[in-house]
Amino acid sequence: MGSVGLVEAQRLSFAQPLPLRSGAELRDYELVYETYGRLNADKSNAVLVCHALNASHHVAGSYAGQDKSEGWWDNLIGPGKPLDTERFFVIGINNLGSCFGSTGPMHVNPATGRVYGADFPVVTVQDWVDAQARVLDKLGITQLAAVLGGSLGGMQALDWSLRYPERLRHCIAIATAPSLSAQNIAFNEVARRAIITDPDFHAGHFYQHGVVPKRGLRVARMIGHITYLSDDVMEQKFGRQMRAAELGYSTQDIEFQIESYLRYQGDKFSEYFDANTYLLITRALDYFDPAREHGGDLSRTFASARCKYLLASFTTDWRFAPARSREIVKALLDNKLDVSYAEIDAPHGHDAFLLEDPRYHGVLKAYFQRIAGELQ
Amino acid sequence: MGSVGLVEAQRLSFAQPLPLRSGAELRDYELVYETYGRLNADKSNAVLVCHALNASHHVAGSYAGQDKSEGWWDNLIGPGKPLDTERFFVIGINNLGSCFGSTGPMHVNPATGRVYGADFPVVTVQDWVDAQARVLDKLGITQLAAVLGGSLGGMQALDWSLRYPERLRHCIAIATAPSLSAQNIAFNEVARRAIITDPDFHAGHFYQHGVVPKRGLRVARMIGHITYLSDDVMEQKFGRQMRAAELGYSTQDIEFQIESYLRYQGDKFSEYFDANTYLLITRALDYFDPAREHGGDLSRTFASARCKYLLASFTTDWRFAPARSREIVKALLDNKLDVSYAEIDAPHGHDAFLLEDPRYHGVLKAYFQRIAGELQ
Repeated sequence: MGSVGLVEAQRLSFAQPLPLRSGAELRDYELVYETYGRLNADKSNAVLVCHALNASHHVAGSYAGQDKSEGWWDNLIGPGKPLDTERFFVIGINNLGSCFGSTGPMHVNPATGRVYGADFPVVTVQDWVDAQARVLDKLGITQLAAVLGGSLGGMQALDWSLRYPERLRHCIAIATAPSLSAQNIAFNEVARRAIITDPDFHAGHFYQHGVVPKRGLRVARMIGHITYLSDDVMEQKFGRQMRAAELGYSTQDIEFQIESYLRYQGDKFSEYFDANTYLLITRALDYFDPAREHGGDLSRTFASARCKYLLASFTTDWRFAPARSREIVKALLDNKLDVSYAEIDAPHGHDAFLLEDPRYHGVLKAYFQRIAGELQ
Repeated sequence: MGSVGLVEAQRLSFAQPLPLRSGAELRDYELVYETYGRLNADKSNAVLVCHALNASHHVAGSYAGQDKSEGWWDNLIGPGKPLDTERFFVIGINNLGSCFGSTGPMHVNPATGRVYGADFPVVTVQDWVDAQARVLDKLGITQLAAVLGGSLGGMQALDWSLRYPERLRHCIAIATAPSLSAQNIAFNEVARRAIITDPDFHAGHFYQHGVVPKRGLRVARMIGHITYLSDDVMEQKFGRQMRAAELGYSTQDIEFQIESYLRYQGDKFSEYFDANTYLLITRALDYFDPAREHGGDLSRTFASARCKYLLASFTTDWRFAPARSREIVKALLDNKLDVSYAEIDAPHGHDAFLLEDPRYHGVLKAYFQRIAGELQ
């Protein structure tokens, strides 16, 4: 199994304004994307991969001259891998509002000539999907073989199946949920408060002040990280391991390895992630709730769906527990849709969707082989 | 069932320095405490109630002229209540380093003449228990009928049974753990970082600056609050309830009721709780690990114990899950100790130990009746 090798991001500019759910619209925006594999003659083998909070269009392969620049789902995508680039044309698109190349809060608002900052319009999962659809229009792809995503990416995959039912044949949604729970929203809100109340946030216009609200970003990332890992895997990896042989009796120094790990994760994140993007993406998560327009009835929500589905969840994921995937599966079955569901006994919590678990990858490989078999 | 009525805090001064686990010692300190009920002639009916993070010596009753000043465990303690003050003499002591009256970080360090702030020595569960023992010495109580505590209070009860085995007949430890897990430490560490990195913290010496690190305290409390409630109860209480009928499309305004609730909890807490106390108390939690001195062997740890035990846990408590209580029960049984254990099916998560659940209170009532039967 190989890598897709060296890749380069591409860029598309859109002159036509994008109407957003909020009522605002986005003018003169750009989207960056990458593709791997070859689009077949009838353009039927395209798979769109949607990204979650801390990821981007750089899904697979590496950048020339950059060590450790593998895409975030490189273990899944490549020649001979479960999503086989010898069979499929894979597309990754950086979502609007992100900080990895597509138009976002650190770019200039053409209406004012100033950096958007906190004035970047609130974007939703639906807005992202609409923007992705326009990329596919430009690539001449009318129907996707599949849309694939995990977590927030899974929500985008579900939304594709609901609002563009004719434009995909398969929806693959992993470790996701039909909406956030109160606890999920609560964790997002604490992270946002940490960022917003950081004095360096300057109401979202910190760019002009030459500062970054790193304190808030660190705390936000630390909180997030706790929810990505299972209690068990944290216990196995760190447990109560001390940094030194003797207790230091300090409230501020690092005593336990788990503290060191979390601080490191927080520090690293605060070096590259944009604070306004963090707010936007967590809000998109909060807002996602397709059943809302159907009186909260998830079965009625999926009445418009036409494609086939694969859902997968992980037993130790307490962020989006298997029960949340089962809600979706039930709604799909209520509509007599074709659905496969795998509940994978994996120890890694929510993060499992990014890891190389043989049972998990086995399920995806088999499903993509089925899709490949339907080509031609 | 009545209230113990109006109560007043009392105060004891200690001239003899208290040696601490860290190697430091505390000079000229004071402890505030309250008592309810009457100590019997042979001083055999005393029950010590140990408090957790956000509580104090004010366990039951009310203060004159103060509305809503009921003690934090008033539903449990009083005439005819499960811990019946017609039978027992109940003592609550505010722990050292707290911000509710006993010597703590906002008091003057006699060695320097300046407010302690971050220089207040790190205190441990063992230090608290040693300090509590000195209060009992002054009250002339050589043996307690019971030590009772929930959460961090339960850890103090366990420590009493390990290090003062002759001074108590019963240990009642509720919703507690033999040590924090990596995930528990992780949540504490994020809360501490939020406080310490608040610019108003001033390395713990904010008192001189006339400010309070409220941003950090708010975030710390919000995180704590999420871990005190079960996912289920949060869902029932708040779910995805919106504040307004229509989405506001804002990352900073309150959209969901759960956000409003958490912000309110954070704001309230930041008005009265001391930041240095928060650091000290979470660190005491982190450090508690009696098995550490016994090579991690909890059964060997309890070899010195002599008293009888009641442990109770709550099915939906994910902070200190029932499995953690069962670890203790096993270690007690390995030592052929007299142990009762109740695993209570309650929806409220960790907070359940403070609430009035009929099955839970029934268990405590029956156990205290047994203890009362042993008196005389």
